Amino acid sequence: MTPIQVPIVERVLNANDQIAAKNLAVLDKSGIYGVNIMASPGAGKTSLIMQTIAHLSPAVSMAVIEGDTARVTIDADLIRGTGIPAVQVHTAGGCHLDAALIADALSQLPLDRLKFLLVENVGNLVCPAAYKLGTHADILIASVPEGDDKPFKYPAIYRGIQALILNKVDLLPYVPFRMDYFRQGVEMLNPGVSFFPLSCKTGEGMEEWIQWLRQKIQPQI
Amino acid sequence: MTPIQVPIVERVLNANDQIAAKNLAVLDKSGIYGVNIMASPGAGKTSLIMQTIAHLSPAVSMAVIEGDTARVTIDADLIRGTGIPAVQVHTAGGCHLDAALIADALSQLPLDRLKFLLVENVGNLVCPAAYKLGTHADILIASVPEGDDKPFKYPAIYRGIQALILNKVDLLPYVPFRMDYFRQGVEMLNPGVSFFPLSCKTGEGMEEWIQWLRQKIQPQI
Repeated sequence: MTPIQVPIVERVLNANDQIAAKNLAVLDKSGIYGVNIMASPGAGKTSLIMQTIAHLSPAVSMAVIEGDTARVTIDADLIRGTGIPAVQVHTAGGCHLDAALIADALSQLPLDRLKFLLVENVGNLVCPAAYKLGTHADILIASVPEGDDKPFKYPAIYRGIQALILNKVDLLPYVPFRMDYFRQGVEMLNPGVSFFPLSCKTGEGMEEWIQWLRQKIQPQI
Repeated sequence: MTPIQVPIVERVLNANDQIAAKNLAVLDKSGIYGVNIMASPGAGKTSLIMQTIAHLSPAVSMAVIEGDTARVTIDADLIRGTGIPAVQVHTAGGCHLDAALIADALSQLPLDRLKFLLVENVGNLVCPAAYKLGTHADILIASVPEGDDKPFKYPAIYRGIQALILNKVDLLPYVPFRMDYFRQGVEMLNPGVSFFPLSCKTGEGMEEWIQWLRQKIQPQI
């Protein structure tokens, strides 16, 4: 809040953007398409990753960087169980991933053998929006039980994304959710953003998301 | 990450704790019981507040401080519609409330006429855990569709609370949620914490939460 703190924050953000640009160059050099998945806790980041692996692997060689605030390997273990390379990044209580953490994780992956990288950010609708990681796309997973007013309440994260997934559409009969109101908020903040309503549980709508990814990922040589 | 930044962070946290202690003294002076409600986006903070108002008001004179990252008044308008004094605190994109914001909000409330204050924090399971506001209790609302693994993944916020609400139990038939596993995580982090499984939608379990509050709130003079 004091004037002296503003330059410090700006310097940190600029440093992050510089490292993010380097990460993007590293991915591009290997022809890897990178996606940063952001969401509220429990919206279905790991479920979407598991479903995406099931649809694309082994035809597409992929890896996962798994962000967690705590030193738990629940999600990383689940992903490694599929045979996909997974690196866990532990933020030590931190509320977002940053480009430097991704740079470290990239150095531990077999980049020359990959075409696709999924990054699971920390479950948080606020802080991750301010830290670019150097992926090609930033994706947000909203979920039906979170409610239809989230674009209005967390606008920053809705503004910066290239695709929006609305997960848990199988719960639409059981919770109040006005789809028109939700879409209105999204369109106000991010007109024309790619939108995929789906259910990781039932598989409904998954094919459209997978098709969108297939168009972005470079063909395997 | 550089050594020079650590003292800055510590100074900010200490300053926050000092202001939190002053807030607590202000509440105590007026005999107001204050509760800080934390949760993931969409877990049901506003719904719980609305239900709590319906059960306690007007017998208990209460007010609400409403934290939002964006300049939207959806929740504050809802609460003001009940006739309860509500102050909206806009964090300008910030990911948590802090004690200074609460001190400002307290100065705008008719403290001498209140016995109970609810503070709705920003929807976030990470950052709010690090900033005490000066309330008597910190409460977390978990919700069934978020999943049963959240205590393991966001331990810091589960450790510091005095009561845990598990909202949306009406969705238990429709989503996978192992209650034993969830309770195991909670007990590991915060043994014996008061636990209220309930549904703001159906009203199930609400009475136990209200009873807990009634025991804390000082009788109206």
